Order: sequence, then C-alpha cells, then structure tokens
Amino acid sequence: MTTKKQGGLADVIAGQTSISTVGKAGKGLTYRGYSIDDLALHGSFEETAFLLLYGALPNDVQLKDYTKKLASLRQLPAGVLNILEQLPSSTHPMDVLRTGVSALAAFEPENEERDASHIADRLIACSASILLYWYHYQKSGRRIDTETDQQSVAGHFLQLLHDQRPNELHEKAFDVSLVLYAEHEFNASTFAARVTASTLSDMYSAITTGIGTLRGPLHGGANEAAMELIEQFGSVREAEIGIRQMLKDKKLIMGFGHRVYSVSDPRSDIIKYWSNRLSAGTENSIIYPISETIEKIMLQEKKLFANLDFYSASAYRFMGIPTSLFTPIFVISRTSGWASHIIEQRANNRIIRPNADYIGYDLLPWLPIEQRS
Amino acid sequence: MTTKKQGGLADVIAGQTSISTVGKAGKGLTYRGYSIDDLALHGSFEETAFLLLYGALPNDVQLKDYTKKLASLRQLPAGVLNILEQLPSSTHPMDVLRTGVSALAAFEPENEERDASHIADRLIACSASILLYWYHYQKSGRRIDTETDQQSVAGHFLQLLHDQRPNELHEKAFDVSLVLYAEHEFNASTFAARVTASTLSDMYSAITTGIGTLRGPLHGGANEAAMELIEQFGSVREAEIGIRQMLKDKKLIMGFGHRVYSVSDPRSDIIKYWSNRLSAGTENSIIYPISETIEKIMLQEKKLFANLDFYSASAYRFMGIPTSLFTPIFVISRTSGWASHIIEQRANNRIIRPNADYIGYDLLPWLPIEQRS
Repeated sequence: MTTKKQGGLADVIAGQTSISTVGKAGKGLTYRGYSIDDLALHGSFEETAFLLLYGALPNDVQLKDYTKKLASLRQLPAGVLNILEQLPSSTHPMDVLRTGVSALAAFEPENEERDASHIADRLIACSASILLYWYHYQKSGRRIDTETDQQSVAGHFLQLLHDQRPNELHEKAFDVSLVLYAEHEFNASTFAARVTASTLSDMYSAITTGIGTLRGPLHGGANEAAMELIEQFGSVREAEIGIRQMLKDKKLIMGFGHRVYSVSDPRSDIIKYWSNRLSAGTENSIIYPISETIEKIMLQEKKLFANLDFYSASAYRFMGIPTSLFTPIFVISRTSGWASHIIEQRANNRIIRPNADYIGYDLLPWLPIEQRS
Repeated sequence: MTTKKQGGLADVIAGQTSISTVGKAGKGLTYRGYSIDDLALHGSFEETAFLLLYGALPNDVQLKDYTKKLASLRQLPAGVLNILEQLPSSTHPMDVLRTGVSALAAFEPENEERDASHIADRLIACSASILLYWYHYQKSGRRIDTETDQQSVAGHFLQLLHDQRPNELHEKAFDVSLVLYAEHEFNASTFAARVTASTLSDMYSAITTGIGTLRGPLHGGANEAAMELIEQFGSVREAEIGIRQMLKDKKLIMGFGHRVYSVSDPRSDIIKYWSNRLSAGTENSIIYPISETIEKIMLQEKKLFANLDFYSASAYRFMGIPTSLFTPIFVISRTSGWASHIIEQRANNRIIRPNADYIGYDLLPWLPIEQRS
C-alpha cells in the first residue's frame, strides 16, 4: 500500500510510456525522443501527429500521404451536422466538441475496418469541422462547407474560421502552437483517457473523456483564463497595479507554473517568440507589453514562470481567434497525444483501478425509516 | 517516486473517500457506513441515492420529497429528443447515453442555480428517458412520452421499456439491482470521473467520462458479456462441456473474480437470490440452472467466485430486458455513485496528474526529412 499525503497522485508513477518525457531535471520536453525545440523549429503539426501516432518521423512520401489523408477526412455525416444545429448558441464550445465527437461514434464506430489510428486521424481532421460548423451556424445561421483547399490542419482551421486565406505568418504560428500542444505525458486529460481505455472501451469514449477533462480551468481552460486576465487591463501601468493587488488578495493567476516543470516550461519561450512576432503585425499595441509585464511580476514576486497557456492566449488573439475557441484548438492538437496514449495503453493493458483511503463511518446498524430524525 | 510492477495502480491509494468501503478483509461493501445487505433488504434505490449524494439516510418526508423530485425530472428538452432521433438504430446504447448526457449540458449547463447535486438528480431521473426514447424511436418509429405514473426509478424504467405496468416482483428485483450497482469506491469509471472533476471541469463532463469508461467489457460491459456466454448453451450438459473447453483454451470468462474482493462479491448472493426468484416466474427453465453450473465449475476449477455482473445478467433477462440495455441500466444507478465522488473530489481538490515511467528513446538529434528512410 502506498499513499501520498499531498494527493492528486503527485510523484506517483501510474504506468510506462515511450511517447514523451516531460520536465526531466525540471525542464525539457521530447516527443518520441525529439526535442520540442526541434519539432517547433523544423517540423509541422502533421509531422508531429504522425510521429506520435506511428512512432517515427515520416519521410517525404509518408508526410505528403498523411497530409492528404487528413485533408480527405474533413466532412461530417449529415446526422452529426443535424445534431450540431440543435446545440444552442450559448453552448460552451467544449461541450460542442465533446458532444460532436461522442455522436460521431454512432455513425463511424470503431471496428476491425475502422481501427484506432484511423479514428485518431479522422478526429484530428474533423474536430475543426465540428467546432466551426456549429460556430458559424449559431453565429450567423450559415451552413458552411467544412472542406477548404488548405492542405494543413493549421491553414484549414484559420480559413474555416475567418472564411479567407490565412496569411503565412498566422498559419505558421498556429501550426507551431499545435505542435506545442500535441502531447504532454500523463497530464490529467491523457491519464483520464488512459483510464477509460483500460476498460477496453472504444476510442470515441476515451477521446470524449479527454475533451471533458481538458475542459476544466485547471487544465486546458487555462489559456482562456489567461486571456481574460490580460484583457482586464487597459495599459501596462494598470496591469502592474492590478496583478500586484491580485497577488496581495491571494487570487489565482492562470498561465503560470506547472506540476511537472520546476524551472521553466520549454514551450513558453517558443510561443512567446511567435506571440511577439504576431503582435508586430497587429494594431493592438498593448496586449503583448501587458503580457510581458505580468510575466515579469510573477517571476519577481512568486518565482513562477509562464507556461504554454500564457503566451498562447495573446498569440491566438493576434490571429483574431475568439477566446472561447482557445481550448477547443488545444483539443484538435492533443487528440494526437491522447490517441497515442490510448493505443499504448491497449498494447499492454491492465485496468486502472486504484484503491482509496477510507475516512468515513465504521459499519452502522440499519436505521428503520421511522427512527430517522 | 513510487512504482508498482503489476500496473493499473493496483494497491496504490489514489485519494481519500468517505463514501464506501469495498472488500475489507476480502469481502463486504458499505455505502456511507451501511452494509449492502441492509440496503438491499430494507432500502430502495431512491433511499440509496439520497444516502450517497446527501450523506445520510432520508427520513420519511425527505424520501417522499426526493422520490417526487426524481419523478418530476423525467422530461427531456426538445433539442435532446431531436439529437436522439439522429442516432441510427445500429448505435451502441452506451454511445446513445454518452451522447445524450453530453448534449443535455448544452441545454441545462451547470451553474450557480443548477448545482452538482441537482444535475446528479436530473441525470438519475432522465437517463432512462434518453435511453428508451431513442430505443423505441429507432425500433418502431414511436416517439414515446418519457413520463409515467410510476413513482420509483425501477418501476418507471420497466414501464417505459415494456409500455405496461411492471409486476411487483420485477420492480422489486430491478430496484435491488440498482441498489447493488450504485456505488463501488475507486472503480475505473468512478476514478476516471474523479480525474475529470479534478481539473474543475463540469458535472456533465465528469459523468460523460464515467459512461465512456463503464462501457468497456472489463468494466460495465461485463454483464452483457456474461449474458452472451450463458445464452451460448442450450442445456446444463452443453454448458458444462463448453465452459471446461473454454478454460482449457484459456478463454476469458466474464462475470467472475474481482480486483478488490478476494473471497467473494457480497452483491452476488443477493442478486443470485433475486435471479432465482425471477426464474421461477418465467417459462425459461434453463438459464438459471446453466448459470449455476457455470458458477460451480468456475469455483471448482479456477477458485473464482461470481461477481455482481454474473447473476445480474439472468435477472435482467427474466425481466425481459434486451442484453444491450444491461450496461446502460448500470449507468442509471452508478450515476449516484459517480456524482457523490465528483462532489467529494471537488470538496478537497487537487488535480490528479501522476507521473510516468519513461521507457522510450533517449534524446534524438533532429533528422531532416530528406534523410529519413
């Protein structure tokens, strides 16, 4: 029997993985052995997803085929479109994705012909369709075509959202953000997806678990919370006063620190670079300096470093993406990591069923209803 | 750092609970201190759900009010009905429930007025509506009224399914099965729901996780697998030969043994008693003797006891319930346990984020695409 007083399974090893390393010596991140710096600098999201799912970097032909395959899987069955039209405009976009992915199982269930990797590719390819079909329909009544001539997942998303060709800088920055969000070892959503997979449930159930778990503000919801924080302030001076007051009031400030990294988040410098480049191309001259100010104060006052979520927020804003779609974008990317873990869990499965430390009543004698107060 | 070679977090304590004890000294089960024997003998499912969710047995007035409250929450929004009509007849009923519960979040999201306990009650009350509205619509095109004049969850389910008043024995046996399935500590679906809740995600996400996790054949799906096993055989003699052959072929036989119980499953004798009573009232004279034969051989040959799923299968069959609805019934009941654990997790939350034992590649140098084989 093993117990950890601090809870949350912190420092408990829950299983083996060969997919990624997180925070060795407090820092660093590798996917299948390749550093996140190399992947973000030289790779694309398609290369990254292929690497995660199929275990090795694709060669030129494989990458072209894989990119084409993803581009061919963007249309949704009419039944799913009908379902999306039923979800009111007030629906949380993560609820839309969770419901859409869950519903797709009814039309394209996992079976011998449609295996786990195929469903992973399908969901990576069509999650943007689920999200943005609903988004445009509820915003303007428009039933969009979920196909575009964009080859990449990044370009496709931006074109579906904005209904125009994205500029190169936006597409590149968005692609990098997908690479950074793709995989992160036994984070809560991935671990939850592995627990679901460990009962030998199907892919859609496990991915649905991932989406529902990522939705929480302590996890994927953090990038949206960071944006709301940043946008509270009208100037660097306001931000400086405001953040110091929040720290004084012991308010939670999202987008900083990490359970596994102790020194820094290796993804933060990368997305910060892109946020800075994007900011130069926008008319908004305050979001980036405000972000830097908040980062500086958090480091000075709390010794907490910015994590990936913090500068992702401003980067997405500079691309004209509504805040409520930030966490859903995380889903599109992380589906590649979740699916890789589900496949790995299945390959060497044992049902994940821990024990609990019981702190409740000892055995109580039955109390007939007429004797209850 | 802690690692367990056997995996699956077996014998690892993942947190504290005051909701139930499972398998102390290899046997026994209590909900909030009350033994499962007392609950199944003297209590109803409504009493059990109230006990789990609100922490104490209800007095007479509370029980009447709670039963009325549940009965008042059976209707679904038109949008959810429309969504259910889109799901083809080939859909796995667990996918229907997972999608229906996920979709309900869009119409009745969790908020300050609609809190976790209310959503728990709502889902306990309306899961049968989701399941059976879809079931009848796809089977016969009939749009059923999801209200009945039955007061209990058990009577309501049977009447919705069969479109006639259930007899008392069926209602009582069904009610007992709901009591037995309601709660089971950190089983995989409950634990997964707690992981989802630990990111501070919403109730619907956590319950959806529970449904998707329960769906697997190593967990909730076991009662359906047990039924398929039993129905393979046309006689006791066939079963005897068949099971011995399966053991010889090292085939997995569902419905036996348990991760946490080592001596026996305290729920099995209770449901076996009811299965036996129900069998006396049916024309089927072989299912019960076949079940007993399989149980006897498994004990003799493998020293494995029947678990709750094994005799639940025949009990449900005797009530005329199709096999594909067995695991969904488990959902209706277990929602009370899941919700209690979600509420408990929130009350003393820390994000559940374990570590992994990395067994993959060491850091690899970047390989430009033209150099890949």
